[in-house]
Amino acid sequence: MKIESVDLFYLRMPEVLDIGDGSQDALVFRVRAGNYEGWGEAVASPLTSIASWIAPMSHSGCHPVIDSVLGEELNSPSDIERIARKVKDISFYGIIQSDLTFSGVEIALWDLLGRAREVPVYQLLGYKKSEPKLPYASVLFGDSPEETREKAVAMRAAGFSAMKFGWGPYGRGSVEVDAAHVFAAREGIGADAHLMVDAGTIFEEDLEAASKRLKDLAEAKVTWFEEPVSAAAVSIYKKLSQINPAVPLAGGEGAHNVFQAEDLIANGGVGYIQIDTGYIGGIAPAFRVANFAKERGVQYVNHTFTSHSALSASMQPYAGMKSSRFAEYPMEPKQLCVELNDSKILPDKDGMISVPERPGIGIPFSISAIKKYLVDVEIVVNKKTLYRTPDPKFI
Amino acid sequence: MKIESVDLFYLRMPEVLDIGDGSQDALVFRVRAGNYEGWGEAVASPLTSIASWIAPMSHSGCHPVIDSVLGEELNSPSDIERIARKVKDISFYGIIQSDLTFSGVEIALWDLLGRAREVPVYQLLGYKKSEPKLPYASVLFGDSPEETREKAVAMRAAGFSAMKFGWGPYGRGSVEVDAAHVFAAREGIGADAHLMVDAGTIFEEDLEAASKRLKDLAEAKVTWFEEPVSAAAVSIYKKLSQINPAVPLAGGEGAHNVFQAEDLIANGGVGYIQIDTGYIGGIAPAFRVANFAKERGVQYVNHTFTSHSALSASMQPYAGMKSSRFAEYPMEPKQLCVELNDSKILPDKDGMISVPERPGIGIPFSISAIKKYLVDVEIVVNKKTLYRTPDPKFI
Repeated sequence: MKIESVDLFYLRMPEVLDIGDGSQDALVFRVRAGNYEGWGEAVASPLTSIASWIAPMSHSGCHPVIDSVLGEELNSPSDIERIARKVKDISFYGIIQSDLTFSGVEIALWDLLGRAREVPVYQLLGYKKSEPKLPYASVLFGDSPEETREKAVAMRAAGFSAMKFGWGPYGRGSVEVDAAHVFAAREGIGADAHLMVDAGTIFEEDLEAASKRLKDLAEAKVTWFEEPVSAAAVSIYKKLSQINPAVPLAGGEGAHNVFQAEDLIANGGVGYIQIDTGYIGGIAPAFRVANFAKERGVQYVNHTFTSHSALSASMQPYAGMKSSRFAEYPMEPKQLCVELNDSKILPDKDGMISVPERPGIGIPFSISAIKKYLVDVEIVVNKKTLYRTPDPKFI
Repeated sequence: MKIESVDLFYLRMPEVLDIGDGSQDALVFRVRAGNYEGWGEAVASPLTSIASWIAPMSHSGCHPVIDSVLGEELNSPSDIERIARKVKDISFYGIIQSDLTFSGVEIALWDLLGRAREVPVYQLLGYKKSEPKLPYASVLFGDSPEETREKAVAMRAAGFSAMKFGWGPYGRGSVEVDAAHVFAAREGIGADAHLMVDAGTIFEEDLEAASKRLKDLAEAKVTWFEEPVSAAAVSIYKKLSQINPAVPLAGGEGAHNVFQAEDLIANGGVGYIQIDTGYIGGIAPAFRVANFAKERGVQYVNHTFTSHSALSASMQPYAGMKSSRFAEYPMEPKQLCVELNDSKILPDKDGMISVPERPGIGIPFSISAIKKYLVDVEIVVNKKTLYRTPDPKFI
């Protein structure tokens, strides 16, 4: 099959708030080849990624991403590998946004191939069966420890036995206040539940500030301490991982290529590596990181804060990996991401989630939601229109 | 002073060739504050970076770069630091192109501050005086060893006593052919000149292929072996640096933040760190890397393949650092980059180059060149024009 068309749909809530909620817009790709189509999403500033898709070439190392995709043959996973390699070869310099942009395309290519062969993507990756994952609910710390405790109680009552608290006041005040929040969370969810803490890179490069939190985190028996410092501060991760009491570190969502993720595993001393397929270049690089992690006794975890299609895409790379058992589960997404998919990934009676046993990514996109939230964009360079939003009548 | 305006000028040669020549287009920033202006360039796909400058906000971590710059106070270097921090705080996710985009702005901020205080940027960084650097001419390997030798002879005759050969056939054929090129280069430049070899990441992740070249490189007494593997493959760099015979490694041009550069120094075992201020976030992060390198006995080298304004901007961060003595000198840029600056940095009678002893970056931009090569761009989102190329009449 030849890749005949790639459509980019920039979706956006009518009002976007200046809050840490990534479900307020989306960049959706539809790829068509042969008689099939595939869909994917990039975790990216949509307008910036649209520009990287069609920008005029700067030189041989700075082609727009479209040059590596349109017209290419797509018959097997090795074609996806070849296309990804082409992106790296001709879009590696001056257009680092290409990593994010291609992520959405790459997922769509896997989806298309899965649909053509009528198997879920995880089987294309070589897994025989998928393993249920324990979803953890990800919520913000409350404004007070008491509020944090109440949130914990409510989430536990909602059926979650794993919960991640993050951001909000954490790291912005004293060690004692942070500890009060963590212990309140532990009290609220109970001694038998999994508790994760996400510092959201708050300590940046301050090893000492981050290390002062370890004692209380260890005492509260947290499963991991996520992104204590800046995403790429590998050496600081390493130092933090060697301090006693040891608390497993988690990170990796900021990796936009396999090397950065592998570096964090090999040189950063993390116990959990968290990858967003919509950011790292798609499913194949995420799969590679999952295997790299497994060989080193590090658990792989998806990173997802948007739609259920993105959740499925982010779970495929480690779907069949028994040793990695947690899955991030998007909580309270905005209406756009609620409506974007015609089906959802829901916890089973044991509270576990699994990727759909359907071809490709297995989570269909809603055309009516796409039309409803579609943003009208036109990019004209020297009087030539390089991108125009598809006409909703013909979507 | 308040930052009143930032103009982005996308310049492009009438014809851009699919070759490894980064001087075929440019993204120039002009910042105005108080009664001053400052100029800078980003090493970036211009259209992609323009989009990242004005893209609608996706969430609190994905603002367009303009949100961190326009209207900000600019009176001292600490203001630049504060603005850079704001970019990291509100544009860190989904818009990694922001690192490149802000590089051009940041350089313009330093240029403006230098002009306002009537001192070169290097003095704003705390250097008392600038140290002359030995410029190395960077050329492609010839198609045959004989052609490589002839190039070497010609460059030596042109006055260069340091020369870097790269790309072309290197790494694409046998170890023997590569060796023949390297020895031909050495023969051509003479035993007393500095010879550098740039593999242009050709071996990607193939440690063995890269290591097979070391013996000949050591025998040819190369000063460094540049980018043997993929830019972010830190662990492979490290392994390669530990193989005998030891050949100093160079890399870092692909670093788009300080962490990546510091990681390559701390965990990659390079002997030379090569930074492009138009890529890593500007002059302040480059300055930080220069100091980080110095503390660890690693030499800092600028990376520049475009204009002389970019050359000056890339030399400022280590201008006063005696321990780092080499400077990359752009050879044979396209007419756009030749005309872009009204003055040039030229070798002195000893063949050395220095940053200009003029306020700011010290290399003026030619308004007529900007008008001549200006690309007309319009980006419209939901009927609102977010970017339009400035009218040449009012530049």
